[in-house]
Amino acid sequence: MREEFQADLTEVSRLLVTMAEAVRAALRKATSALLTADLKAAESVIERDLEVDELYRQVESKVADTIARQAPVASDLRMVITALHISADLERMGDLAEHVAKTAARRHPSPAVPAELRPVFKKMGEAADQMADKITNVLARPDAALAAELENDDDTMDELERDLFQILLADDWPYGAETAIDGALLGRFYERYADHAVNAGHHMYFFVTGQALAKPA
Amino acid sequence: MREEFQADLTEVSRLLVTMAEAVRAALRKATSALLTADLKAAESVIERDLEVDELYRQVESKVADTIARQAPVASDLRMVITALHISADLERMGDLAEHVAKTAARRHPSPAVPAELRPVFKKMGEAADQMADKITNVLARPDAALAAELENDDDTMDELERDLFQILLADDWPYGAETAIDGALLGRFYERYADHAVNAGHHMYFFVTGQALAKPA
Repeated sequence: MREEFQADLTEVSRLLVTMAEAVRAALRKATSALLTADLKAAESVIERDLEVDELYRQVESKVADTIARQAPVASDLRMVITALHISADLERMGDLAEHVAKTAARRHPSPAVPAELRPVFKKMGEAADQMADKITNVLARPDAALAAELENDDDTMDELERDLFQILLADDWPYGAETAIDGALLGRFYERYADHAVNAGHHMYFFVTGQALAKPA
Repeated sequence: MREEFQADLTEVSRLLVTMAEAVRAALRKATSALLTADLKAAESVIERDLEVDELYRQVESKVADTIARQAPVASDLRMVITALHISADLERMGDLAEHVAKTAARRHPSPAVPAELRPVFKKMGEAADQMADKITNVLARPDAALAAELENDDDTMDELERDLFQILLADDWPYGAETAIDGALLGRFYERYADHAVNAGHHMYFFVTGQALAKPA
């Protein structure tokens, strides 16, 4: 029974890694679509979000199946349920990548972000990408230091969001309200993506080790 | 065993009703804080979100306990797991009410929304409040017609968001980028709150009846 249970967890973990890789690729492509006004890339992100949603259903179904067959209790049960939280975070990250892509597509052929904002969105995209890479690794190698790094990465993202708002709210902002609003919403999509990555990382650490990640000092 | 299981579900349901009532009250108060620049009301919403988070943990703990003790299978198990989705939606609705309150508090003593925007936010607050009221009722009285009404309410919310953006993006918008950004983000908070209410309503219907809600024609 114990061996079967471990095999089930491994299967759930495999689905979660696939999901994490998919939402990482989605935001990479969405950021590129945003920075280069690439409609095809944006449309591909929007279409492929269905695959993430399908993986989400597979995780849920596998978790229900595992609980029903193995009847885990105590910490085993908590670990299995944690997989649902992880997949909910990853599913939401996929949605947020899709929102970025939709913003890029809506303004096409104009770029959704003016030249002044491109450097900060490039950095936000890179920070998010690093975080998505790390959570994939936490599943394969449950390293507390790696999971804790996500907190610092998230601080970086928050700083980038503040930089963004400083540009948007400068007295000499020349692009009007629509571009300011798009910029602010886009900033929020990246910031939320990073937040969900932090949550997913914590849950993943628990999922693999059965122990909560200590809060960083 | 069956009776105990029903008693557990009733207890989970009671927690969910308490959560739904709390997030309804939170957005009512946050909207009032927003429309009347009432700092005390805003601060009270921010403080009380901790109670919603605590209820969320109680639901999770009660669900894990129910699964461990009753070992439900098949549709019983799916119903219990659905409670986790409901509480996640409700917890997020509480966060969104808190975001509205924080926006009101940040701009205090100035009102966060200028007079032109107050009517649309008043309507958004009312639409959200109706939806929060309905989902509380779905748990007590699983009426498919009532749950389906949430879809129409959500359409109303989407229309209100479009009205809002029409004002924000008018050529003669006189308030500058910061107020436009606050308006857009606030609009998104209400729209997301409504989305989560629709999700919660569907999950609640399943939780009480064991049947998925048919998609409206």
